[in-house]
Amino acid sequence: MAQEISALVFDAYGTLFDVHSVTRLADTLFPGRGAALSAAWRTKQLEYTWLRSLMDRYEDFNRVTAASLDWSLEHLGLEADEAARRALVAEYRTLAVFPEVPAALDAMARQRPLAILSNGHPEMLEAVVEHNKLRNLFRGGVLSVHAAKVFKPHPSVYALAENRLGVPRSLTGFVSSNGWDAAGARTFGFQVFWVNRGKAPVERLGVRPDAVISNLSELAELLKQ
Amino acid sequence: MAQEISALVFDAYGTLFDVHSVTRLADTLFPGRGAALSAAWRTKQLEYTWLRSLMDRYEDFNRVTAASLDWSLEHLGLEADEAARRALVAEYRTLAVFPEVPAALDAMARQRPLAILSNGHPEMLEAVVEHNKLRNLFRGGVLSVHAAKVFKPHPSVYALAENRLGVPRSLTGFVSSNGWDAAGARTFGFQVFWVNRGKAPVERLGVRPDAVISNLSELAELLKQ
Repeated sequence: MAQEISALVFDAYGTLFDVHSVTRLADTLFPGRGAALSAAWRTKQLEYTWLRSLMDRYEDFNRVTAASLDWSLEHLGLEADEAARRALVAEYRTLAVFPEVPAALDAMARQRPLAILSNGHPEMLEAVVEHNKLRNLFRGGVLSVHAAKVFKPHPSVYALAENRLGVPRSLTGFVSSNGWDAAGARTFGFQVFWVNRGKAPVERLGVRPDAVISNLSELAELLKQ
Repeated sequence: MAQEISALVFDAYGTLFDVHSVTRLADTLFPGRGAALSAAWRTKQLEYTWLRSLMDRYEDFNRVTAASLDWSLEHLGLEADEAARRALVAEYRTLAVFPEVPAALDAMARQRPLAILSNGHPEMLEAVVEHNKLRNLFRGGVLSVHAAKVFKPHPSVYALAENRLGVPRSLTGFVSSNGWDAAGARTFGFQVFWVNRGKAPVERLGVRPDAVISNLSELAELLKQ
């Protein structure tokens, strides 16, 4: 590392929790179309966070998630009643954690405070953290953009973590599997670890992550050195 | 119409000019992969405009277009030398106009001033307008977000058109085939005509266009009434 790291901040969706674990329920409701629905839904969900932020029309992530599901269902020609739509949105409260995450977090939490910084509505976030029994690992807090009323990668979101942790951004490690989130955090001034789970190309947004890893076990190893 | 319309403002890419007309060159360079490259490129190009705006790292559309092409080539595993990349980006200066556009614009220009308001860099825009011999139809001007140093749908972009035309937003018609641009313009307060060329679902962004049309001929007819 270029500098010591006094705290670690993690993105939630896609980094700790697998957003595509909704595919199973989606596939039960719409046999053979679950993966397509999950992919369209996630893409549109992110688009809406960026667009609403730019239009200065923040709406919480639970609503954005429901709205983007509605668009995706219509886009794919799938019909769902209110109960099915509610069940799909509720899946965000019980998303599966990636398999290596609990042990890796446990190792890292012994060395420095860990926090979550996420687009999620505070209740959605608390629910998925509780569901996966990770709450006691995040001494630094489970922080939501909801306090800033704008989504990532707006700089005021990353400032929430700096203010809450009381650790200068240059001594804070930020961990995300979303390349655009990694770029936003790097622009803000965090030391950034991009978890490139899907071997994606690096985003061309004018900054590069400080390190690229393929999962959180690799990060735990790297930070031991 | 709910109210009279004293001026009309058009989005450029996707509304007047077919961004997927780059597919032909792309397919010559990468046989069988032109459509996939064009689709990935356009999606990433828009993402970068939103992300850079949110990160407060504006970079002109010509550079965003080149950066998003680089990402898309790597994503699809396609190798292109500098000359091929430059040729693809240069295609944005000679995009094809949608077939009904010239006659429809000509009819509408007789009744009120027309303008363009686009993400494009001023030089890219002037080039594609000249290439399609449409310059004299836009008495209201060919306006670029470059003056605001932020991309659509940030409200300060739409304000550029209101200021330049000197027509109140409530009396200005805004025409876009991009559903998110239509939502941004409606939020700003324009009367919005969404050109739904691809029969897409309406975006769930909390506002609706005032009218939905399938092409610009339909708009010209509608405005005659």
